[in-house]
Amino acid sequence: MTSTAIKFSFTQLATELERVRTNTPLVHVLTNEVVQCFTANTLLAVGASPAMVVAQEEVADFAALADAVLINIGTLYPERLAAMQAAIASANAAGTPWVLDPVAVGALRYRTEAAKAMLASRPAAIRGNGSEIIALAGGLGGGKGVDSTASSASAVDAALALARSTGAIVAVTGAIDYITSLTTIVGIAARRQCEQRQTLRRCAPAQNASGAGTAYAVALPRAPPLGEQEMVLDQEVRPDQR
Amino acid sequence: MTSTAIKFSFTQLATELERVRTNTPLVHVLTNEVVQCFTANTLLAVGASPAMVVAQEEVADFAALADAVLINIGTLYPERLAAMQAAIASANAAGTPWVLDPVAVGALRYRTEAAKAMLASRPAAIRGNGSEIIALAGGLGGGKGVDSTASSASAVDAALALARSTGAIVAVTGAIDYITSLTTIVGIAARRQCEQRQTLRRCAPAQNASGAGTAYAVALPRAPPLGEQEMVLDQEVRPDQR
Amino acid sequence: MTSTAIKFSFTQLATELERVRTNTPLVHVLTNEVVQCFTANTLLAVGASPAMVVAQEEVADFAALADAVLINIGTLYPERLAAMQAAIASANAAGTPWVLDPVAVGALRYRTEAAKAMLASRPAAIRGNGSEIIALAGGLGGGKGVDSTASSASAVDAALALARSTGAIVAVTGAIDYITSLTTIVGIAARRQCEQRQTLRRCAPAQNASGAGTAYAVALPRAPPLGEQEMVLDQEVRPDQR
Repeated sequence: MTSTAIKFSFTQLATELERVRTNTPLVHVLTNEVVQCFTANTLLAVGASPAMVVAQEEVADFAALADAVLINIGTLYPERLAAMQAAIASANAAGTPWVLDPVAVGALRYRTEAAKAMLASRPAAIRGNGSEIIALAGGLGGGKGVDSTASSASAVDAALALARSTGAIVAVTGAIDYITSLTTIVGIAARRQCEQRQTLRRCAPAQNASGAGTAYAVALPRAPPLGEQEMVLDQEVRPDQR
Repeated sequence: MTSTAIKFSFTQLATELERVRTNTPLVHVLTNEVVQCFTANTLLAVGASPAMVVAQEEVADFAALADAVLINIGTLYPERLAAMQAAIASANAAGTPWVLDPVAVGALRYRTEAAKAMLASRPAAIRGNGSEIIALAGGLGGGKGVDSTASSASAVDAALALARSTGAIVAVTGAIDYITSLTTIVGIAARRQCEQRQTLRRCAPAQNASGAGTAYAVALPRAPPLGEQEMVLDQEVRPDQR
Repeated sequence: MTSTAIKFSFTQLATELERVRTNTPLVHVLTNEVVQCFTANTLLAVGASPAMVVAQEEVADFAALADAVLINIGTLYPERLAAMQAAIASANAAGTPWVLDPVAVGALRYRTEAAKAMLASRPAAIRGNGSEIIALAGGLGGGKGVDSTASSASAVDAALALARSTGAIVAVTGAIDYITSLTTIVGIAARRQCEQRQTLRRCAPAQNASGAGTAYAVALPRAPPLGEQEMVLDQEVRPDQR
């Protein structure tokens, strides 16, 4: 793949964030036990309205009311998985976009099977680290707990394959963050090195990305239908080019 | 209703807070997954001793030992609901005051029915936003997830009705916070505007209020018995009058 | 017991912490609902890699992969207890050290019986406050919720008895923190007084200690086998002697 530098306009980003702020999207969050408060704060900070509704008795009703649904399987167990499946089905029936964060997929079979089965319900977006995206795409992703043992760059082909097979926008977070649709892949290398020793560096920024991404997905069109598209561009933003 | 300005004495508040600090009340907290750490910190900050005990196997024992019980239904599900019901029954048997925070009641049926059923067990205090209080009192509260679509002012009549029917002290949080017993309603407009864009503005301040309120309820007498009282005063504190 | 002052070398501590940082131990955390995010951050801060894996379907696999397992029973309930038991069994089979934090043991029967039963599976380390350690050792520990009603100093004999009967390193936290193996007990009085009014003072520092302790246990040898050892030294570090 060839890499072409593009300039990223902060005005464009500001406009998109303003859309989120203006619409205050209601985000149905089904996430892991560790980051619930942080994800709620992140969504509030970008102007969304998060709500953690978890009972199988009410997730379907709430996913239909919501503007977006976040599914993060970090601390998955059977009752919560059943709630997630009900929320996804209801979101799809209502045309609500939903985002999948496949935490530690590849490292553990129970969650790997659960996440792969969710792909058939076509998430609007998927966010994972290198190991998770490779494993979700069917490869051997490795992974050490919730940490990646594969670079994000090494997961770009898997991300593109996953985008084509599911129709989702796929984001791979790492030293460089990659975001791909069916026709474009963009790399963002703006993450500061100091974050490498920051608390929650492995966990929270990722949740952060998927939490805020859920609000953002509200306004995004779904990826185009499967099958016909080709990769036409492989773009990458390098810090020194911005 | 006529509104009469009253002066609020900070010395009086300081004295009441000092009572909490001196007694270090043991607060049994059954709250939602998002705010557990924040609620624990808030209770510690005011001098209480919080403990999150959740198993159906031990909630009854602990509610009987505790000085107050907080029930927040934000992330309700059947096992936790059963634990809450057991804690409430034990609290009532032991004469322990308990506080109800009816998160998102009105927006979702499962929790609305659960919260309404709890009213028969006579909470010492209820804290909700406008939509939640209106819905809990039997009206159409609206609500968008955990956010209110009704002003706190519009829920004052519902709060008074709820106070009369349950005997509870009822607080409605919003731009103005209202606190009502059977005979008095006080409005507090001291919340700073900057909080409107603060993280956790929708979620944590409310939990904060009910968490600290639980510790405070320890020292408060129960509301007088139902039926005979009339509203005799509708008081409101405005910021410029303090 | 006689008390002998020893000098504690910060260089020695730095070397041990550097070992943690270099090895980035994978820590399987099964902890309470209140402190999950704080414990994750603490482990990240010392250079470990925490992962909260909770499903009975995958805890055994993950405990075998992990370098250490933390069991904290603060918000115990039957499904989570079963997951903890499966993780402990798998950790022992794989030779993975595991740490027990017996929150509120003594105050409530369900958790007291659960924690005592875990002792037969020989934790590598145990961390509790005075009341918890006394109760875990079979005495009447008292305790008020998650708070101790016994000083850490009053629990030293119980800590030594527990160390002898289980082979674990036992830490008692309080005004003075005591750490005992089968042959040595060290007291650390470095905790600053200002922490007494800090938020989470009762809860988080304790979790902090056990979380970081789990990472640290990775590099420690197991305590020597039971039965033959005698206490030969009772050492205590006082702040003015450092």
